[in-house]
Amino acid sequence: MEMKVTTEWQGKRHFLSTGESGHTVAMDAKAEVGGEDKGCRPMELLLMGLTGCTGIDIAMILERMRQPLAALTIEAVGTRREQYPQALTEIHLYYRVTGDVQADKVWRAIVLSEEKYCSASASLRAQITPHLILNGQEVPRPAGLTAGADPLV
Amino acid sequence: MEMKVTTEWQGKRHFLSTGESGHTVAMDAKAEVGGEDKGCRPMELLLMGLTGCTGIDIAMILERMRQPLAALTIEAVGTRREQYPQALTEIHLYYRVTGDVQADKVWRAIVLSEEKYCSASASLRAQITPHLILNGQEVPRPAGLTAGADPLV
Repeated sequence: MEMKVTTEWQGKRHFLSTGESGHTVAMDAKAEVGGEDKGCRPMELLLMGLTGCTGIDIAMILERMRQPLAALTIEAVGTRREQYPQALTEIHLYYRVTGDVQADKVWRAIVLSEEKYCSASASLRAQITPHLILNGQEVPRPAGLTAGADPLV
Repeated sequence: MEMKVTTEWQGKRHFLSTGESGHTVAMDAKAEVGGEDKGCRPMELLLMGLTGCTGIDIAMILERMRQPLAALTIEAVGTRREQYPQALTEIHLYYRVTGDVQADKVWRAIVLSEEKYCSASASLRAQITPHLILNGQEVPRPAGLTAGADPLV
């Protein structure tokens, strides 16, 4: 399976990138390295793509499980190397879920995304650790949790 | 070094993500999986971030080398696994450069980005292969090319 994006330089450190979906994203550097902040830092896009990829998984899986989400916010906190190249080495994903949903089902959805579906997660070298905050309370990952039966198949 | 993005579910498969730069990117799935195409596919963002990251490197390095770019387009073509998770396994980067610039200097800039500076490239598991098309002609990578003296330090 192939995918392609095309990215055009706009002068200085500014780039516009378009993928096969047809949507365009602006990227730019900060002023310290000659940029003008006309778009995202490129490294932000890696974390954004990760949250969107696992977010779509979670939305789909919980829908199939008939667990009604009221709200879902995913924060990704990445640690990067201090030396060049400043690669992402560790990422914590905070899934903030609101709704009348069962904690064990949300954890199963997270584990299914992590272990089976999330293409972005499997494309990154960083160690990725999920956390669930359900209706404002952190819910630890159940010991020995496996994804179990997959509601998407 | 830490970085953070926050991604909010908008219903169905639609998400809005904002990083510390303050810029927001929309993501959505295609209709086949319940999306409405209100933004990029999340996996596109990984390739976009890669092209922007190496693009900024190339723009900076060629500026320091006093090699005047007229135009620069970077295409990323990624191959993904057919099975889940559909991770990127291989990426070809096509640097299409226009301008009165020396091929060996552009290749050195590409190699400096690849080996030293590009944080996105170092964050991805995929095998990444660069290609240079200079003023419409493909220029093969010089045998034994190393980055050599770094104009950015």
